[in-house]
Amino acid sequence: MTPPRAEILSQGDELVTGQIADTNAAWLSERLTELGFLVTRHTTVGDDLDALTGVLREIGARAELCVGTGGLGPTVDDLTAEAAACAFARPLREDPEALRQIRSWFAGRAEPMPEVNRKQALLPDGARRLDNLRGTAPGFALNHAGCRFFFLPGVPHEMEFMFEHAVKTDIQSSFRTRPGQRVTLRVLGIGESTLQQRLDAIAMPPGIKLGFRTVPPENHVKLLFPAPFPTSERDTLVEKIRCALGPSVFSIDTPEQAGGTLIECVDRLMRQANASLATLETTSRGHLAQLCGAHPWWTYGLVIPDTRPVPVRLGLLPRDGLSDDLPDAAALAERLRLQQGTSHALACLESPPDTRELVIAIAAGSGIVTARRRLDGNPRYRQALSAALALDFLRRTLSTPAD
Amino acid sequence: MTPPRAEILSQGDELVTGQIADTNAAWLSERLTELGFLVTRHTTVGDDLDALTGVLREIGARAELCVGTGGLGPTVDDLTAEAAACAFARPLREDPEALRQIRSWFAGRAEPMPEVNRKQALLPDGARRLDNLRGTAPGFALNHAGCRFFFLPGVPHEMEFMFEHAVKTDIQSSFRTRPGQRVTLRVLGIGESTLQQRLDAIAMPPGIKLGFRTVPPENHVKLLFPAPFPTSERDTLVEKIRCALGPSVFSIDTPEQAGGTLIECVDRLMRQANASLATLETTSRGHLAQLCGAHPWWTYGLVIPDTRPVPVRLGLLPRDGLSDDLPDAAALAERLRLQQGTSHALACLESPPDTRELVIAIAAGSGIVTARRRLDGNPRYRQALSAALALDFLRRTLSTPAD
Repeated sequence: MTPPRAEILSQGDELVTGQIADTNAAWLSERLTELGFLVTRHTTVGDDLDALTGVLREIGARAELCVGTGGLGPTVDDLTAEAAACAFARPLREDPEALRQIRSWFAGRAEPMPEVNRKQALLPDGARRLDNLRGTAPGFALNHAGCRFFFLPGVPHEMEFMFEHAVKTDIQSSFRTRPGQRVTLRVLGIGESTLQQRLDAIAMPPGIKLGFRTVPPENHVKLLFPAPFPTSERDTLVEKIRCALGPSVFSIDTPEQAGGTLIECVDRLMRQANASLATLETTSRGHLAQLCGAHPWWTYGLVIPDTRPVPVRLGLLPRDGLSDDLPDAAALAERLRLQQGTSHALACLESPPDTRELVIAIAAGSGIVTARRRLDGNPRYRQALSAALALDFLRRTLSTPAD
Repeated sequence: MTPPRAEILSQGDELVTGQIADTNAAWLSERLTELGFLVTRHTTVGDDLDALTGVLREIGARAELCVGTGGLGPTVDDLTAEAAACAFARPLREDPEALRQIRSWFAGRAEPMPEVNRKQALLPDGARRLDNLRGTAPGFALNHAGCRFFFLPGVPHEMEFMFEHAVKTDIQSSFRTRPGQRVTLRVLGIGESTLQQRLDAIAMPPGIKLGFRTVPPENHVKLLFPAPFPTSERDTLVEKIRCALGPSVFSIDTPEQAGGTLIECVDRLMRQANASLATLETTSRGHLAQLCGAHPWWTYGLVIPDTRPVPVRLGLLPRDGLSDDLPDAAALAERLRLQQGTSHALACLESPPDTRELVIAIAAGSGIVTARRRLDGNPRYRQALSAALALDFLRRTLSTPAD
């Protein structure tokens, strides 16, 4: 079965002039690919009726599904319904339920509906209205010449909500596709070229799409398995990849279970251990406090330029000056733990300062563990990387039961 | 003079399936618009020779300039040169200088050039080679049927470098355009709809493009003036807008001078004042330390969940417990300043905790100033917003000479 062809259409002068970047197209493409479509093209045009009408006809001639975003607002620049009416020769009609919803959206904000918003209730004849539960602009769907068109708002959170709550089920009843199975391995500390090299050594059965995505400082290995791929074989292959990549894989998302982000993994382990944490960081410049800060087990964070001028003022060490060796990062973590009364303390320092040698020390009641990591990349990247490496070491420590 | 029409073409399966988002298109569109082009369309297609050949012919028939990115790599999926050769009936030829550059790129890394990379030296007959000083893939330019095509690598930093160092001058000698003048007002604490409302009251001369861009938590008002717009009239209008938006405008970028980001403004003022800073933050969760952390005038950052459990452990206040009123934030800032021996100390607290009422206190030798701000948005946004509001208050304090 060849997958049906889908195209994405984005509309707006602000996109075509680069005033905002189009994030909707990538989001929709990923969803449609997962749902079993072959996405063949994205097109972006400005607020121009002729261009828009023309591109709708072109897409109708090429694809079986089109998802369009933007141009549903109340102003004269919002031309999607008019363009669809032109392109498909269907006059615009006022949808009474759409009008009622727009009025009630304003009523909910104790505002009268401006007359311009009435335009948003005009839909091409025979279109299916898609309710917008997050904003004023309703979307709509229609068929033309063997292609099903969906028109959604351009505001990402409105668009995503409408896609998940109205478009997906419509697509699933209109098309017989075979959704793939997406597996994502999240990796820290291995670059994309090394990842690719290690994966080259693994025989990949045909039909599996392999992709990489960098979400600095993490790298994600993305596998899309065809729908009928047996789960046990899938899991065997994923396990083989996990072994090839080693302990740098901190989390795996499958259709059955989300492994989650690094801080989500740490959060799970901290809660399981009923632990609490204080942090001291230099190189990571507050990234560590920021990542931990939303969680109840984190109680205290100290951020300093480096460890040279402050040991006494911090009250963490009784003597003046720190030597730059591993034991002192350990001592610092232990003092911090005792001073703050937490079960764990984490120190994340460049030591000696400015050497790109990261020292991570974790103090707990059961003892102190330390690790050294090499930092690379530009300064901003090194900040995020050192925080992630420190959290990852905490994750590894919490995952390994104490002797 | 009507501006020449330009289109952007992005190529890659990873784009069309949404595995990575296309940031090149927006970047190029903004540059081309500034250079005086009318960007009318973006198209993205996958690694498919027929689709690519077809779309090149379509663009050639519609536009006078096309900038394409991606598909210049060494693998079988990289089809740009082949597609251009097909679409424009120009056989591929090996460019000796391109081959020499690719070899020397590998030699610089003490690696032999893999045989597959030889493919990257094949360019359509008569094309102009564009040297890639940041990677292996050379770009190229050619004319076909009244349209000038540029093909650049897909890696953003290689693409941007090649655009700035080779494409821009080529474009400027190939086209007679009139580049516009871009002015950006950076604003903190006013939402887009309020911005729009305040600007509605200002009569805008014709030909000026007005746009908004949200770079959370900032909002940017972007004005693109036509080339012949007199500078003095431009500056008068910008000043009128600045007055309408009030002190929330923290910086203005003009073609002559970059006002810069909020932290760049603070950095300038801190250096001018020869000042140093310690910070204490709750709600902003390390964002403040992170923003200040790269600058030599910042020496110490404390990040805590809220002010309730820690005043004694912090050693900042002699008594147990803090009341939740303004004077204590001020006292905290002053103690921090004395404890750390800095010229300034900044405390940024939600007070009372969890009320979305931000209290900012700045202690300096000349006295203590405080401000209250209301926080809105989701938790992650509030973190970034409170750090920005604190920095902005520091900026305003430093800009105003003490009485």
